[in-house]
Amino acid sequence: MDHAIGIDFGGTTIKSALVREGEILERGAIIDTRKCGTPEAIVDALVEVAAELSSHAKGQVRALGIGLPGIIDSVNGIVHELTNVPGWKEVALGDLLRQRTGLPSKIENDVNAMAYGEWKYGAARNGLHVVCMTLGTGVGGGLILDGRLYRGAQLGAGEIGHMSLDYRGVPGPYGNFGALEKYVGNNQIAERAVLLYAAAGIQKNAECCTPMHLSVAADDGDPIALGLWEALGAEIGATLASVVWLLNPDTIVIGGGVAKAGERLFAPIRRELRARTIDIMHNRLRIVPAELGNDAGIIGNATLALDSLSA
Amino acid sequence: MDHAIGIDFGGTTIKSALVREGEILERGAIIDTRKCGTPEAIVDALVEVAAELSSHAKGQVRALGIGLPGIIDSVNGIVHELTNVPGWKEVALGDLLRQRTGLPSKIENDVNAMAYGEWKYGAARNGLHVVCMTLGTGVGGGLILDGRLYRGAQLGAGEIGHMSLDYRGVPGPYGNFGALEKYVGNNQIAERAVLLYAAAGIQKNAECCTPMHLSVAADDGDPIALGLWEALGAEIGATLASVVWLLNPDTIVIGGGVAKAGERLFAPIRRELRARTIDIMHNRLRIVPAELGNDAGIIGNATLALDSLSA
Repeated sequence: MDHAIGIDFGGTTIKSALVREGEILERGAIIDTRKCGTPEAIVDALVEVAAELSSHAKGQVRALGIGLPGIIDSVNGIVHELTNVPGWKEVALGDLLRQRTGLPSKIENDVNAMAYGEWKYGAARNGLHVVCMTLGTGVGGGLILDGRLYRGAQLGAGEIGHMSLDYRGVPGPYGNFGALEKYVGNNQIAERAVLLYAAAGIQKNAECCTPMHLSVAADDGDPIALGLWEALGAEIGATLASVVWLLNPDTIVIGGGVAKAGERLFAPIRRELRARTIDIMHNRLRIVPAELGNDAGIIGNATLALDSLSA
Repeated sequence: MDHAIGIDFGGTTIKSALVREGEILERGAIIDTRKCGTPEAIVDALVEVAAELSSHAKGQVRALGIGLPGIIDSVNGIVHELTNVPGWKEVALGDLLRQRTGLPSKIENDVNAMAYGEWKYGAARNGLHVVCMTLGTGVGGGLILDGRLYRGAQLGAGEIGHMSLDYRGVPGPYGNFGALEKYVGNNQIAERAVLLYAAAGIQKNAECCTPMHLSVAADDGDPIALGLWEALGAEIGATLASVVWLLNPDTIVIGGGVAKAGERLFAPIRRELRARTIDIMHNRLRIVPAELGNDAGIIGNATLALDSLSA
């Protein structure tokens, strides 16, 4: 059976595993992204972890896939630039890993890899047209269209967090006024909560207003937290309604830390989508939480690397 | 050389032609949609026109393609419903035409067919990821993604006019507040112009505020018309910016009557797109007017019908 190594390169840690048919067989040692420092040191650590994982597979590892947060040329294996990780500019990571590990190596944008994992083995199994959205500090997305990962002209497609909720809304990072991320990103959620509490005469600082804190508060019946989740769900749902009008997907997968709020978030998202689209488009649309959690990237990268061997 | 018959079914007239490699060789008699009345009478007229066009092709007609405005199941050849044409509910038009003409017959949504025509033989030639938008009474769209017509789960993709510019904006027809069509559709353009003129103490009625009138007025330096075109371009550009973040296309084609305003409309659209997206996404993005005009549908339908023979 075909084994592959999947690696999920994050700004804080790099996780990896030996994967077979979407199952994690063995996890690699976690790499501290910042401690390693330079790209050279990180590549050394990646090669070491790959060798260790390969040793568990009795020579059956056929490919290596790695997902990174940033602007990634997955066709030519080039990391143009990484988000929140300095020193990575125009690194030919695909070639480097191929030469150093001897394995066919594939690099991909991290959210695309996560979407691919959820589609092949997670919440979007059997979907043909899948929109995958991740909620966190950043709000990202990945698209499976007509049963294939869709990357777009400069491989930059899927940026749902930069779509505009209101063309005259708050400024986004790239002149994109009303960017969804500026409403429902983790930092913005905390800022909004602080303001809402303050207006009710309750002083809280942002550290006590993380999505996790607000979930607990909502569970306890806190009306401010409950109202904020409603608003967040409505804003996400309204943006996804535009995505539905444009792409008419069969499945929307929502993942990332914020999505752990569960029905508190999903109920207003579903309600808004139903209210803003036609029956034929939303009646059979599945809106589901991601299933693979933190492993979606690892599984997606391993699978993408294997699938690209036969492509 | 392969010939095909392309038919463009409109709410007012039905136009057709004999097409070879994107060129119109012979036009069919124009059918008056309303005069014909029933679907049966229209099918009779379509069969007659197809026979007449075939007679010019010396037996070389290989397929027939027809595009219609409404909810079309292009896979099974079913017209679910037509916009502005009563009596068409669940008509198996594909089978009917195949039986009556003896030709492999393909039906398609009219805007998808137009997009296909512009992609194969018009303004979006050589594009791989193409967004096609039509401006008129309605605002529609069609998508070519990864070099294929993209239809979505219920074959309803591409509805750019129903995407929201502002989630708390004016009500759209399907609960979609801020629907672009409710800002830049022909009727809305006229209403806005009437109000703007009235605010300046100038009484005009809507009939004198069509896009054509407003183009002429702008040519004459009328500040109200000039300002309105700027606003329309900015609104279209802002919506297209969200489309670009999501799909990262290489080409955007804009057609329909309103698009005839030319640079007056295209300049603010381009400016807004540049202002609201990142360099890598807009530097090589072509934003071009449709080239095939009223023939895009005829050519697109004929070509779709031929291409589906080999699919």
